[in-house]
Amino acid sequence: MPDRVVLAYSGGLDTSVAIPYLAEKMHAEVIAVALDLGQGGEDMEDIRERALDCGAAESVVVDAREEFAAEFCVPALRANALYMDRYPLVSSLSRPLIVKHLVDAARRLGGTIVAHGCTGKGNDQVRFEAGLAALAPELRVVAPARDFAWTRDKAIEYAEARGLPIETSKKNPFSIDQNLWGRAIETGFLEDIWNGPSEDVYAYTADPATPREPDEVVITFDEGVPVAVDGRPLTPYQVVDELNRRAGAQGVGRIDLVEDRLVGIKSREVYEAPGAMALIAAHMELENVTVERDLARHKRGVDQRWAELVYDGLWFSPLRRALDAFIAEAQRRVSGDIRMTLHGGRAVVTGRRSGDSLYDHSLATYDTGDAFDQSQAKGFVELFSLPAKIAAARDAKKD
Amino acid sequence: MPDRVVLAYSGGLDTSVAIPYLAEKMHAEVIAVALDLGQGGEDMEDIRERALDCGAAESVVVDAREEFAAEFCVPALRANALYMDRYPLVSSLSRPLIVKHLVDAARRLGGTIVAHGCTGKGNDQVRFEAGLAALAPELRVVAPARDFAWTRDKAIEYAEARGLPIETSKKNPFSIDQNLWGRAIETGFLEDIWNGPSEDVYAYTADPATPREPDEVVITFDEGVPVAVDGRPLTPYQVVDELNRRAGAQGVGRIDLVEDRLVGIKSREVYEAPGAMALIAAHMELENVTVERDLARHKRGVDQRWAELVYDGLWFSPLRRALDAFIAEAQRRVSGDIRMTLHGGRAVVTGRRSGDSLYDHSLATYDTGDAFDQSQAKGFVELFSLPAKIAAARDAKKD
Amino acid sequence: MPDRVVLAYSGGLDTSVAIPYLAEKMHAEVIAVALDLGQGGEDMEDIRERALDCGAAESVVVDAREEFAAEFCVPALRANALYMDRYPLVSSLSRPLIVKHLVDAARRLGGTIVAHGCTGKGNDQVRFEAGLAALAPELRVVAPARDFAWTRDKAIEYAEARGLPIETSKKNPFSIDQNLWGRAIETGFLEDIWNGPSEDVYAYTADPATPREPDEVVITFDEGVPVAVDGRPLTPYQVVDELNRRAGAQGVGRIDLVEDRLVGIKSREVYEAPGAMALIAAHMELENVTVERDLARHKRGVDQRWAELVYDGLWFSPLRRALDAFIAEAQRRVSGDIRMTLHGGRAVVTGRRSGDSLYDHSLATYDTGDAFDQSQAKGFVELFSLPAKIAAARDAKKD
Amino acid sequence: MPDRVVLAYSGGLDTSVAIPYLAEKMHAEVIAVALDLGQGGEDMEDIRERALDCGAAESVVVDAREEFAAEFCVPALRANALYMDRYPLVSSLSRPLIVKHLVDAARRLGGTIVAHGCTGKGNDQVRFEAGLAALAPELRVVAPARDFAWTRDKAIEYAEARGLPIETSKKNPFSIDQNLWGRAIETGFLEDIWNGPSEDVYAYTADPATPREPDEVVITFDEGVPVAVDGRPLTPYQVVDELNRRAGAQGVGRIDLVEDRLVGIKSREVYEAPGAMALIAAHMELENVTVERDLARHKRGVDQRWAELVYDGLWFSPLRRALDAFIAEAQRRVSGDIRMTLHGGRAVVTGRRSGDSLYDHSLATYDTGDAFDQSQAKGFVELFSLPAKIAAARDAKKD
Repeated sequence: MPDRVVLAYSGGLDTSVAIPYLAEKMHAEVIAVALDLGQGGEDMEDIRERALDCGAAESVVVDAREEFAAEFCVPALRANALYMDRYPLVSSLSRPLIVKHLVDAARRLGGTIVAHGCTGKGNDQVRFEAGLAALAPELRVVAPARDFAWTRDKAIEYAEARGLPIETSKKNPFSIDQNLWGRAIETGFLEDIWNGPSEDVYAYTADPATPREPDEVVITFDEGVPVAVDGRPLTPYQVVDELNRRAGAQGVGRIDLVEDRLVGIKSREVYEAPGAMALIAAHMELENVTVERDLARHKRGVDQRWAELVYDGLWFSPLRRALDAFIAEAQRRVSGDIRMTLHGGRAVVTGRRSGDSLYDHSLATYDTGDAFDQSQAKGFVELFSLPAKIAAARDAKKD
Repeated sequence: MPDRVVLAYSGGLDTSVAIPYLAEKMHAEVIAVALDLGQGGEDMEDIRERALDCGAAESVVVDAREEFAAEFCVPALRANALYMDRYPLVSSLSRPLIVKHLVDAARRLGGTIVAHGCTGKGNDQVRFEAGLAALAPELRVVAPARDFAWTRDKAIEYAEARGLPIETSKKNPFSIDQNLWGRAIETGFLEDIWNGPSEDVYAYTADPATPREPDEVVITFDEGVPVAVDGRPLTPYQVVDELNRRAGAQGVGRIDLVEDRLVGIKSREVYEAPGAMALIAAHMELENVTVERDLARHKRGVDQRWAELVYDGLWFSPLRRALDAFIAEAQRRVSGDIRMTLHGGRAVVTGRRSGDSLYDHSLATYDTGDAFDQSQAKGFVELFSLPAKIAAARDAKKD
Repeated sequence: MPDRVVLAYSGGLDTSVAIPYLAEKMHAEVIAVALDLGQGGEDMEDIRERALDCGAAESVVVDAREEFAAEFCVPALRANALYMDRYPLVSSLSRPLIVKHLVDAARRLGGTIVAHGCTGKGNDQVRFEAGLAALAPELRVVAPARDFAWTRDKAIEYAEARGLPIETSKKNPFSIDQNLWGRAIETGFLEDIWNGPSEDVYAYTADPATPREPDEVVITFDEGVPVAVDGRPLTPYQVVDELNRRAGAQGVGRIDLVEDRLVGIKSREVYEAPGAMALIAAHMELENVTVERDLARHKRGVDQRWAELVYDGLWFSPLRRALDAFIAEAQRRVSGDIRMTLHGGRAVVTGRRSGDSLYDHSLATYDTGDAFDQSQAKGFVELFSLPAKIAAARDAKKD
Repeated sequence: MPDRVVLAYSGGLDTSVAIPYLAEKMHAEVIAVALDLGQGGEDMEDIRERALDCGAAESVVVDAREEFAAEFCVPALRANALYMDRYPLVSSLSRPLIVKHLVDAARRLGGTIVAHGCTGKGNDQVRFEAGLAALAPELRVVAPARDFAWTRDKAIEYAEARGLPIETSKKNPFSIDQNLWGRAIETGFLEDIWNGPSEDVYAYTADPATPREPDEVVITFDEGVPVAVDGRPLTPYQVVDELNRRAGAQGVGRIDLVEDRLVGIKSREVYEAPGAMALIAAHMELENVTVERDLARHKRGVDQRWAELVYDGLWFSPLRRALDAFIAEAQRRVSGDIRMTLHGGRAVVTGRRSGDSLYDHSLATYDTGDAFDQSQAKGFVELFSLPAKIAAARDAKKD
């Protein structure tokens, strides 16, 4: 019996061509696995059939939208995950979930090899292979682009030679990855970092500079999880989807940065993540209202580490689980409503309301009703600044 | 000879009334010290004379604009200082400089007491008194609002009873502090955190929603210090001043958050800091291009600690000096140009250019000329993910 | 009906005198609450009766030994809690538990005021009052030593004047606090930091320099909790108690340091904590064997923050709970045996054994059976050091 | 002209055999470079001649003892560098210095290839190659043990076949690396982590259990650098050397741990570092006396990161330079005397004395002369614990 290769299948040129190529090269049957992660675009059934047309022995499509939203996007939101303070981890979040379903398929359908389309200079190869090492170390991994130096030109030539049912003419200047949490665009003229992105780079967001009416939205959170929009209860997937549309229509969530890749080089990346960026802004402000100061200060460091770790492909690591335990405890009171205005590329919080608020008007006010005992302040100031004062006195003596 | 009280003087109602009040209460001569920190508004000479008209024995005005920009704003910029990821430390930066000049005046003019107008529930009392404890522990400190429970109503009554040359009728609903680095607004209807700010709250920024033409600007940095705008060499003060005007005209830099005060309560604060926010965005992206990954990751934690420390009033502390030594080393290559578009409340980087760039097109490109050896990747991925893999194998065995 | 004051009662001179003093000064009934925290020394029943003899309306003794060990010492052990890398938090751990029982007593017996014997320059006042603020903000707090400037000399005079049944002649040169987790000694000639401690300072530990036979012990942990000694299952209290005896007999666990107090001064402290120090050494090494690298590196920072937070009196804080959630997850596999030699003041790990070990002999060995694929290393080294290499090339060009 | 290979030469079997092997395999001339890093043992001149006898074209010996002490050991001491809180970075410190001298030799003598004896599963290959990538990316690197799967058995066979002037019979069961800062021992029966080390493992330290007289020593530091012992001014090399002898004679500085290697596996390591461990203990306590609290707390994290970074082979990285800038500022007042007793395997601080002390007896004392104003404490405690109190009140309401 031949080996069975489980291929992470996108429906695009490269992974379509990989089906006959891997079958031939490895004397194996290919099982194509495609996930609906809310990326929109083509019908998943068309993708499923294309794999079979290209020679796959089996072709599996998984609707992973709610799972992706609840198990990957929501934890990222609770961690306010922004790699380098900017990038909301679009591709980094989907890879471990794809890995999980590849492993499921391999175990169910007798796969012994897993294949993915990543190159050897990106982050995604690490995310795939670190995930596979954790979940199914017994599976062998093949990455044609990296391991067999398989390029796009070779793929087109191969497809045309065999008459594969794939369009090879359409030339996209960019390399794109997209899912519910956002869209990543790289290569092409963006590789010159002095060039700004042109408007055609974007698909999830309208031009923020176009005049239009603002959109006001109220997002309700329960323990850090978004559970309703404008009072309508929604699933996590539905919340992100609705905010992608509404914030995207206002041009919210475009990001353009030079980024430190895990493989040691800097690359230029453009992202658009309207729902993610609006939700993170709302969540951060609700934390400001409901999380105690020392916990909030410490959580910033945890959030940064979480984003780095997941960016680095270590979703299935003991550290991620322990950071999530910290975060879960920190989110126990992050419940309430945030009102935002979405407009002109901005998602601006204008109101917060929470039964778990730590904001106490009677302590904060300068008006009648002030409950804060100002006489305590003098002693506080004295002792709080005492170490620096003693050091200054010492240093004055010496200098 | 009577004691001499050196008063931090703003020209406003409270500190004007404090002049005769302190003179009387403490049987002392009052020396008023006012600083030009780029706050705009009244002529400094008018302020100087008002103090004398209110009974000050001496009245001193210091043009501290360049000093403030170079010695306080620039270090904050190099630290990307944003307290709670949002607030660029407007008031926190000015207080230590005011303290320095109060101490200078006290030493030059024979002051033995220092007075400030802060209340007992804000951060500024800590910043003043921690600074004074460090620089001049021998000086006694008096804060009428806190120590003598002196309120605005009492001040108005007192001013009218003595016929002081101050306008007492104009009622500003907000408490405001402003300088070159930004403007802080609190109290009034903003104390209800469900209320959004109204347009009249703002003075440094135009409404971002008003349609207008975008403004493109190129900022040049040398070791993290902004040294030119659109190719014109400028002092730090001039850079911030120009960007305040240009970014302010585009509605850039409005901030609205619930903030953790040092005295242990949460308060609602609105800020506008057009120049600061545009500069920090530019500086962060230039760091992305020029700072090595591990250093950049570590610096995020340093930047957060810097902002907390300065927010907490500990400018004159050994830790601030040591963090600045780290930052100075980290800034040695942060030189180059950042091109930004200022528009619709957004300050968006569109280009970066640096002789110190670590972005290497030949390593990053997916096109011809790729210098990255992809065959190294497999070994990297294996060893990089080995600890998580071994842990996963252990855990799988147990669960 | 008079107010009832719940007093944290130790049985010593100061708190004994405080009973009639507080009753008189506050026109109140005093309820004495004493806890057995494994401190040894006097019989708890004698202490209970002394309080009544001194005029207490009620006198309560609580055997809190197991609770203290399980709920306070074990969490400290799982956090490897060493303030300033040295001090295992002896007093810091007991204060929140005392607070809990004071609050219980107040609620059960109608107390409205709580009293403690701390001075105004130590850490314990903060620990008491921060705990009370968290658990029972409605209770008023009185600290005679601090609030009424009540000194030891006054106490002796007062006791003699009223013929209180307390020995006032015995003069201990030191201020001492002790419980199951260790013993703290301060003041006296130790206030000169050039003086070394004399042998009479110590009570829990024998002189490490005395020749004696070594003692070998095997400690078994389950998820970071010590559950057996030499194969005998024991409660946490019994484990610490046995190790106090055995490690103490070998002179293990003496500590002498200049310490940063929360109130802003440096003080000189001597501690002895034989069981705590032996257990922490064992636990750290078991973590080395069972905790994955990235998690272990991050946990060091968490451990430090935990120790600072608890030292600072913030046991009842949201941050402590969230750090404990992180630690609990990190301890899930910290199970196994540690063999130690206790001898000459040293507690030295000599063996580790765990079903959850991540040490893999087949990967580590240099002998036959080596399973590590060395050919992967070259690629790893290349990419791992690539960022520093690119930076070095850039810097070489410039310098 | 043939290529010239610059070989890191130890004088031992493996690198001696590598001389003819590399010459043959690579058709190259071999330049042997040996460093005196204070490792003791063989005469360096004998080592130099052995290389020539084995066929080296040139043989260079460098006395790098003072350079190693001043430029590598002292920075480690100022960082209190203990990887995993235990290991003072013995080998990690020497590798970058060896790299520096290999590069010097290559440039001076026309080398184009560098060779080292490391295997592919240890840390040292990373340290060598990361250093070479930073200092001389143009040099090619060869590691026979890793790249040509060259084993000890092959080496012995090769040596005997060619009659090389090396002793091949002496079988050391351990793999050893040693220098001024300490000695590392691994493999053999130590690979079973339940085995304790036997006495013959050690060479720098006497058995701590042997009864002997204690040794008292006073170490003087200037800005964190040890400059004198018992009042005698010494160079850094001399200080470490003297303390190696004196602390080693008392059995101080034995370490035995399971360690996280950079290549992703856990290994068992035994070290002895008498001088290093005594100096670090002394230095830490002097920091306790002279470094302000907030700076000290932050420095602990910096110290940990420094140790990890240098352990990981990234000495020549921008982050190490920036951390060192922080540390240099933090050391400005770390000057004074520490008195220690070396005895029975323990190095115990018994006294500290410094013109830069922040310990203020008049603030710390409980005796007459107390200058601490206890009345300030109440206000401090109130505000310090206010955030946790407000959170507790909120949580009590909800639970």
